[in-house]
Amino acid sequence: MLGYAFMGKAHSNAFRKIPYMTWPPPLVPRLVAIAGRNEEAVSAAARRYGYERWTTDWHDLVTDPEVGLFDNGGPNVVHSEPTIAAAQAGKHVICEKPLGRDADESYEIWKQVAPTGVKHLCAFNYRFVPAVRLARELIEAGELGEIRHFRGRYLQDWGDDPSLDTWRFHADEAGSGALGDLGAHVVDLARYLVGDVASVSALVKTFLPGRQVDDAIEAAVEFENGAVGTIESTRLALGRRNAFQWEINGSQGSLAFDMERLNELQVFRADGDRARGFKTVLVSEADHPFWQFWWPPGHIIGWGDTFVNEIHHLLRAIAEDGEVAPHGATFDDGYRAAEVCDAIVRSGRSGSRERLEYRAL
Amino acid sequence: MLGYAFMGKAHSNAFRKIPYMTWPPPLVPRLVAIAGRNEEAVSAAARRYGYERWTTDWHDLVTDPEVGLFDNGGPNVVHSEPTIAAAQAGKHVICEKPLGRDADESYEIWKQVAPTGVKHLCAFNYRFVPAVRLARELIEAGELGEIRHFRGRYLQDWGDDPSLDTWRFHADEAGSGALGDLGAHVVDLARYLVGDVASVSALVKTFLPGRQVDDAIEAAVEFENGAVGTIESTRLALGRRNAFQWEINGSQGSLAFDMERLNELQVFRADGDRARGFKTVLVSEADHPFWQFWWPPGHIIGWGDTFVNEIHHLLRAIAEDGEVAPHGATFDDGYRAAEVCDAIVRSGRSGSRERLEYRAL
Amino acid sequence: MLGYAFMGKAHSNAFRKIPYMTWPPPLVPRLVAIAGRNEEAVSAAARRYGYERWTTDWHDLVTDPEVGLFDNGGPNVVHSEPTIAAAQAGKHVICEKPLGRDADESYEIWKQVAPTGVKHLCAFNYRFVPAVRLARELIEAGELGEIRHFRGRYLQDWGDDPSLDTWRFHADEAGSGALGDLGAHVVDLARYLVGDVASVSALVKTFLPGRQVDDAIEAAVEFENGAVGTIESTRLALGRRNAFQWEINGSQGSLAFDMERLNELQVFRADGDRARGFKTVLVSEADHPFWQFWWPPGHIIGWGDTFVNEIHHLLRAIAEDGEVAPHGATFDDGYRAAEVCDAIVRSGRSGSRERLEYRAL
Amino acid sequence: MLGYAFMGKAHSNAFRKIPYMTWPPPLVPRLVAIAGRNEEAVSAAARRYGYERWTTDWHDLVTDPEVGLFDNGGPNVVHSEPTIAAAQAGKHVICEKPLGRDADESYEIWKQVAPTGVKHLCAFNYRFVPAVRLARELIEAGELGEIRHFRGRYLQDWGDDPSLDTWRFHADEAGSGALGDLGAHVVDLARYLVGDVASVSALVKTFLPGRQVDDAIEAAVEFENGAVGTIESTRLALGRRNAFQWEINGSQGSLAFDMERLNELQVFRADGDRARGFKTVLVSEADHPFWQFWWPPGHIIGWGDTFVNEIHHLLRAIAEDGEVAPHGATFDDGYRAAEVCDAIVRSGRSGSRERLEYRAL
Repeated sequence: MLGYAFMGKAHSNAFRKIPYMTWPPPLVPRLVAIAGRNEEAVSAAARRYGYERWTTDWHDLVTDPEVGLFDNGGPNVVHSEPTIAAAQAGKHVICEKPLGRDADESYEIWKQVAPTGVKHLCAFNYRFVPAVRLARELIEAGELGEIRHFRGRYLQDWGDDPSLDTWRFHADEAGSGALGDLGAHVVDLARYLVGDVASVSALVKTFLPGRQVDDAIEAAVEFENGAVGTIESTRLALGRRNAFQWEINGSQGSLAFDMERLNELQVFRADGDRARGFKTVLVSEADHPFWQFWWPPGHIIGWGDTFVNEIHHLLRAIAEDGEVAPHGATFDDGYRAAEVCDAIVRSGRSGSRERLEYRAL
Repeated sequence: MLGYAFMGKAHSNAFRKIPYMTWPPPLVPRLVAIAGRNEEAVSAAARRYGYERWTTDWHDLVTDPEVGLFDNGGPNVVHSEPTIAAAQAGKHVICEKPLGRDADESYEIWKQVAPTGVKHLCAFNYRFVPAVRLARELIEAGELGEIRHFRGRYLQDWGDDPSLDTWRFHADEAGSGALGDLGAHVVDLARYLVGDVASVSALVKTFLPGRQVDDAIEAAVEFENGAVGTIESTRLALGRRNAFQWEINGSQGSLAFDMERLNELQVFRADGDRARGFKTVLVSEADHPFWQFWWPPGHIIGWGDTFVNEIHHLLRAIAEDGEVAPHGATFDDGYRAAEVCDAIVRSGRSGSRERLEYRAL
Repeated sequence: MLGYAFMGKAHSNAFRKIPYMTWPPPLVPRLVAIAGRNEEAVSAAARRYGYERWTTDWHDLVTDPEVGLFDNGGPNVVHSEPTIAAAQAGKHVICEKPLGRDADESYEIWKQVAPTGVKHLCAFNYRFVPAVRLARELIEAGELGEIRHFRGRYLQDWGDDPSLDTWRFHADEAGSGALGDLGAHVVDLARYLVGDVASVSALVKTFLPGRQVDDAIEAAVEFENGAVGTIESTRLALGRRNAFQWEINGSQGSLAFDMERLNELQVFRADGDRARGFKTVLVSEADHPFWQFWWPPGHIIGWGDTFVNEIHHLLRAIAEDGEVAPHGATFDDGYRAAEVCDAIVRSGRSGSRERLEYRAL
Repeated sequence: MLGYAFMGKAHSNAFRKIPYMTWPPPLVPRLVAIAGRNEEAVSAAARRYGYERWTTDWHDLVTDPEVGLFDNGGPNVVHSEPTIAAAQAGKHVICEKPLGRDADESYEIWKQVAPTGVKHLCAFNYRFVPAVRLARELIEAGELGEIRHFRGRYLQDWGDDPSLDTWRFHADEAGSGALGDLGAHVVDLARYLVGDVASVSALVKTFLPGRQVDDAIEAAVEFENGAVGTIESTRLALGRRNAFQWEINGSQGSLAFDMERLNELQVFRADGDRARGFKTVLVSEADHPFWQFWWPPGHIIGWGDTFVNEIHHLLRAIAEDGEVAPHGATFDDGYRAAEVCDAIVRSGRSGSRERLEYRAL
């Protein structure tokens, strides 16, 4: 594990729960080592989460023969080098999103890692929310018909504090602001549920004086399949704490979702029922995605639990030598999301609609 | 009254309710005459709504000395000529939105009508929803601080019927599709609550084969005051019947609204309360806007009732020789909304961000 | 019309809207006369609502040969005598709920009026909310299966004001407090949707010192068909302005409703759908009850509009010599609701479960 | 640990998360042993959850000197004897709710355990939902004023299956049905938030033929402090999976809650704000109860996480020799809830209001 803060906690918790929440577990994680820059903090994290050893030099993890899976939960600036090194050392890799700080860096990570043959997952954990997976299944089953609209916005408000300082506000460490932090999630979900983005017409906005990165982005988007919609992310939407909200309209039905109520999916079907309307589906039934791991119906899960679903998916792919895609985001997905984010930046600067071109390996 | 269909019914109902719902009424409307193209239909409408006479030639209304207020509720194609003629004949005028089929036509209407000195109202009735007026009052009182975001979308789904034909699908009669029909409402509300639009980066989309007008528009927008956001309208959002939804985020608070629950306003204030969250305000208190006309608190009003609030506003302006603005949309407002709609069309075609320039008289 | 306050306004508005909102109207109401105790107020009401004449003596209405329908919207204390007199004079009668101040008085009104052969309606207007009628239709169609639970509560908060004085707080004028004012509505809806009540186990509570009538009632109830549930009403539920909320569970599905969102019905069906959940039905479709009178789908109606639906129902029964029941509450229904209310009072005093016995004519 | 099914999983998960989610942990649990009747199942559970050894005889746990805390998560029928034995052997004890199968058994458990001086917790875990604790804190701070109403209902629908068989349907093993399973939770929350119950007027109902225990209970209740309200529980409310919903009205404000959205608390304050209404508080702020253990604001927790909060509370009481009460339910609380449940049964049979009398030790 690289990183011991927010994502370090979320991933470590998942590793520890896998052995008994998912039964039988595909693999039983052993928490070999954790790396971080601050010696005091990383040693405390090792004690807290039960890592056998700790280091302030991530190279130690890469060269450690006992490490089979390298989990990169560090700041964006340390995504590239350690992740590539670990993969080239033959370790499976998870990397937090965004994959790189821009499309070039992301492409490079993908390009270097893919040939190694290890499993790679870009940790867009929201694909592992049961309601999101159910949405995907309904769409794949054709229940929405042809998709026409996607409107997604990721709204938080913690950025509205001029006194706050974090690597997330530093252009060199983060690459971008609300765009890479939140907007990348919207882009990935859009890709997962609707398909690849064809063009964006966007604005990029920084409100707070002196802030190096964007506070918000706004985009009108076209998809390759003809759907159109909006993508938005902001850290200045007061009252919205983690409101990743999206709605999809198709020719046969619609879906809507809000991460602050992540156990619920709104489902509308144009089925001719006189009692027409959006159904509030509490996604917690025995036959709902991932629910075999959890509780009886109606006993909801939390945000942290989505990482259990995600890590389980990866461990199973490793154990069975299966594919991470399409339900897990690979580094290919991580790169493609980055292309869209870059296009948003370009469009914000140029004032023009930017058409997407995706590089192949 | 010109027109006897949807808007004819809505306006006629308002005229009839004014004398007893608003007490004392500023003026007691007399339903002198109604005009429409179909003799059978217009004569039936006259009987139904209680107009003293009817005509198939709107010029009769313009020349009728007993008509003091000309209400144009006809299709967009007949907004311009009759409205101008009525104003030039010295009659106060209401014209349904959009004012003209494009900015040029709208500008011409405004330019011709303004010098006549009559009262003119472009019937953006949603300004007269009590929750919308309350939103405006909260914003004016500074409760939201500096406005940073507006996200507005007007979602309907009746357009998803290839067999349907109406003037609203004919480019020459309507000017545009979801843009002028629904998007104009979003633009007007954005202007009323946030301020004038500075630029748009937009898409215009027609999904159904053979349809002459747009089914949907998507736009990223900047406001003159620096706020940014999205504007969207579509007639193909299955399950959304009249979902004019908007949210505004400022530096001190946020507001959110959905026309399908038009009696409610969501209010968030960053006031340091430990119990922080959006408040669902049922806008029906004695001290809430327009509520002196209605019922005890909690006894909600309907969509049709907003026209009573609107017509009352105009009649009071006429009776007291007061201003229609700022709470009523004047033809100036109608024109400015049309400029934004035109810019959306231009941006959709050019792929470029279109900056707004507003003409003066 | 007897009464010019809250109900006078609501009923007068309905009479005035019938001729053009319901088309063709079954009858066109003529507002012949209005009666009230206060000369100044009743004369103003006559001018406001358009009654041809006014009187401070309700006997004038009863003897007026031009009056064909007597609408009693006065305080409970004047329900009995004028209503009976009007019916005996051959006039059709509407009487506001509760029919009488207790079961004996209600029975007497019913007993006196029924033999006259006039149409009689006890104005439980909530039966004429489109969502309530749709609920009834779904239940009648068997969509809920066997009904097992009814939980109904009518919550308001205006009673929490020690300085307030109104006839509604006087035992002799009102009969009871939250029970007759709000609880009677719950009882009537329960009867309309589930069936007759078999027993009640209840509490009756007055919180404010010096108040003559109950502030709240709480009851566990059994229905004749075996369903069980709760009935509650209070005027002291802070934050609830007009929250008449009920839920019904059957062996095949469930329904839920809140009067503060009266255009919506929550519908659950145990139909094996993997996407299971309550559907939020916006009751405003062309094929929904009463909707032929109103607007396009999604354009909601208000509380006041339910009276149009109600009065239309009665006028059609008069015009066609049809039945007021089962969708309109007759005086029989008014009496039966009163028996349940009386049983609640008795149970509150005795501490015992009170079984219902209904008198026949 | 006694029991390896539903509660065994929930408690074991909590024990395993304590060491790293609550930091620094008050105590680090060691999973010494687990007992259960079925050898195959209990041995599998030991492997799954990491218990060092397993046994089919709970006496082994009681006599095991390495066991310091005895957690009874077995069926109701095995609550009494093992719990008493463990406490008398000097082990701290947790016992799932309901404490005993009736008040007598519950009293006996309390009476036997209290003198031993061990810490005892009756596992009413819903006291450890952050929103519930926040509710308690708001009430204690006087923000609701004098409490007037409590309406609580616990609605599930899994009981509607005639083919289902579980110990929960056997009178001898469970004691009661929806009453002890769900109703006890409502009673405990009512006691925690409002105070002790003074009387109940209740119905007890079994719908399914052949079922030995109640399917539903309905009660009108009075509290010792004068508040009144309703308590209901049922396993036959189709569409409600885990809907433990309650509302409290006081003279200064109101609160409302639904376990299916356990991260949210509805808060109304009569503070004279023109924008009045219920606030939807997402209980996930740094200064909210238990939130130091969890995630950034807006990143919600799940039902299973409430057990972490609960076990942490008990472990801290053990570590610091502090009190389990008032925030944890002691066996005294478990007994008192049972008295209310018994009174509901008695009232259901007698048809009379049953006044509560609580035994002292």
